Amino acid sequence: MAHINDNFTKLPGSYLFSEIGRRTAAYQEAHPEAKLIKMGIGDVTLPLAPAVVAAMHEGVDDLAAAETFHGYGPEQGYDFLRTAIAEADFRARGVEIDDDEIFVSDGAKSDCGNIGDILSLDSRVAVCDPVYPVYVDTNAMAGRAGDYDEDAQGWTNIVYMPTTAENDFCPALPEEDVDVIYLCSPNNPTGTALTFGQLKAWVDYANDHDAIIMFDAAYERFITQDDVPHSIYEIPGAKTCAIEFRSFSKTAGFTGARCGYTVVPKALVRDGASLNGLWNRRQTTKFNGASYVIQKGAAAVYTPEGARQIDEAIAHYRENARVIREGLTEAGFEVFGGVNSPYIWCKTPGGMGSWDFFNKLLEEANIITTPGAGFGPAGEGYIRFTAFGNAEATKEAMKRVQALKA
Amino acid sequence: MAHINDNFTKLPGSYLFSEIGRRTAAYQEAHPEAKLIKMGIGDVTLPLAPAVVAAMHEGVDDLAAAETFHGYGPEQGYDFLRTAIAEADFRARGVEIDDDEIFVSDGAKSDCGNIGDILSLDSRVAVCDPVYPVYVDTNAMAGRAGDYDEDAQGWTNIVYMPTTAENDFCPALPEEDVDVIYLCSPNNPTGTALTFGQLKAWVDYANDHDAIIMFDAAYERFITQDDVPHSIYEIPGAKTCAIEFRSFSKTAGFTGARCGYTVVPKALVRDGASLNGLWNRRQTTKFNGASYVIQKGAAAVYTPEGARQIDEAIAHYRENARVIREGLTEAGFEVFGGVNSPYIWCKTPGGMGSWDFFNKLLEEANIITTPGAGFGPAGEGYIRFTAFGNAEATKEAMKRVQALKA
Repeated sequence: MAHINDNFTKLPGSYLFSEIGRRTAAYQEAHPEAKLIKMGIGDVTLPLAPAVVAAMHEGVDDLAAAETFHGYGPEQGYDFLRTAIAEADFRARGVEIDDDEIFVSDGAKSDCGNIGDILSLDSRVAVCDPVYPVYVDTNAMAGRAGDYDEDAQGWTNIVYMPTTAENDFCPALPEEDVDVIYLCSPNNPTGTALTFGQLKAWVDYANDHDAIIMFDAAYERFITQDDVPHSIYEIPGAKTCAIEFRSFSKTAGFTGARCGYTVVPKALVRDGASLNGLWNRRQTTKFNGASYVIQKGAAAVYTPEGARQIDEAIAHYRENARVIREGLTEAGFEVFGGVNSPYIWCKTPGGMGSWDFFNKLLEEANIITTPGAGFGPAGEGYIRFTAFGNAEATKEAMKRVQALKA
Repeated sequence: MAHINDNFTKLPGSYLFSEIGRRTAAYQEAHPEAKLIKMGIGDVTLPLAPAVVAAMHEGVDDLAAAETFHGYGPEQGYDFLRTAIAEADFRARGVEIDDDEIFVSDGAKSDCGNIGDILSLDSRVAVCDPVYPVYVDTNAMAGRAGDYDEDAQGWTNIVYMPTTAENDFCPALPEEDVDVIYLCSPNNPTGTALTFGQLKAWVDYANDHDAIIMFDAAYERFITQDDVPHSIYEIPGAKTCAIEFRSFSKTAGFTGARCGYTVVPKALVRDGASLNGLWNRRQTTKFNGASYVIQKGAAAVYTPEGARQIDEAIAHYRENARVIREGLTEAGFEVFGGVNSPYIWCKTPGGMGSWDFFNKLLEEANIITTPGAGFGPAGEGYIRFTAFGNAEATKEAMKRVQALKA
């Protein structure tokens, strides 16, 4: 008799975005004339860069003729893309990463979820609070999280590291032993970023404890400040303790096209095995490579023309982030993030609950945001704005926020 | 201190295709004038159908303009594709499958590998021997296979079901209790297919034992005979015991483009939970949907024009299969498969070992094949030919085989 993986039955419902959708739809139905501005979900809105579009068309044309047809590709990604990534994103920044330490995939969400395949099931996992839910839920599915405690709004075996204004959004090093630590910088949802010094403390901790850092750098391209590392491998010693996840989703508009990559250094060894070899075995056994068409498009991100076009799109989102940050500040709110990130993390006024503030913004300013409490208990009292909308709507939203305050 | 998943260290090397590559390269280097014909790896060679190409270009263009841009899509696939699949591949054949029982993905290899996420780790797994290695290796990685026994060339906790000419390539129902049964029909590597009657025995067995059949139907479109079901759901009762994997790889040339889908019926319930819900939770948590561009292309397979073009490509491969089957038969070999499948499974002459016969074909006919022993101990004494080459080369190969015999 077949049995299910009963860890799935322990998962609480995933209500955040469906609840936002439900409240938004109810409001719109009651107020059909309201012009809602969406600043909730972290999805891009600008089209793909022309260089990427041209390369994808070329990729499709390659598959349209027998002479240029590409069947099964390397599970790790085509060399043309792995080399471009290793060169531009790492070696050009002085970080020695080999081409065969790059694993191209259909996106960072898959990799962040699947990486647990190569780790022991009794690993002790630490996450920031608030946090991108995928880190927690995938470990809960694998049985590493223990049981869900409704009162604590958390799992009994997960170590939660509060990441709030009180600690400058840099969590304290854990006092208990942990084996796997998820860090996201620039951070989703707080929009803040770890400096060289802050990240160095984590790398040193991980090496001292033989822990592994899962470093999610999906928002790397939004970094503007010099003291924020673009890769964890800019920190000495990181190659013996860290795996890095990157994505073309937010940097190049690939949320629908799907492409990302993961860096697994050969020097990262546990129990005598290189994790590079383990991940290679995992990917060659359970994955058949990212689409050739999409990899062609991703490679265009690294051409001079493509890079310039991507930078223009990022500049657009950055300007939105500035408008939101300054607009909220002028309106008297306390805000964080938005400098190295498309996310602005705003303290709710007067200790208001984040769902209450969500309602207020929806009803009184017709703006849809994301309540911080949806990302974990320490997100209570905050709300997330995203800079992925268009410039006009973003400015209009800030006018409404200021009118609201007045 | 982080530990690895030590099941990975138990995996034997995956040498089949690398060993074929090594022997082939060595021969070619020693005989640079030899014109090798590749009939080994199961990859398609014909370009994508024009209708698919046009739809993918449209998909790229949609991503090139803000008005038509698609960001994050539904993790389960776009409705336009799920509905087309459910309608054409199931309901049009009289099989009632709902749209929300279809989960579109980046390919059947991912799904076959990831499906184990939703099952108990102590499930007892049964596979055919010979077998597509992914079923075994992914269960070994998860810890369901026990230990690898070099002498037996198999895993201690996996139930192997010999599938040979002696049992008409339909394995006997297992005598011990098994929980999860992998069946592939039309079969890789044997090229044979289960009839309605043969498959019904398995469905009845699974329902009687509350087991789950993982039914891999990646080669469904090659079926020519009326008594071979295209879907396991053509068998009454299959919706309470079976998950079906489909792929656009072999049917529509998507090995490089990447798209497949998995059917998880809502009526498939174990431990009180619908596996449809569990797989939905798995996919929404660890996957972000297949590429929009590629889904657009896949949907074109279901247009009248696309379907006609796909059928032409399949007819080409089928004709190759006929040439191989008849050519080998005329040359005095005993052959199986190739009627409902692009694979021809050929008995080695005079009890020769399959690697020895591989060498003979390589050296004396300059044909590259795949030794049956590479798919499991019961594959010893067989060799696999694939029909995915071009027509001229396939005919030339059969001339060489006949000359060899003479």
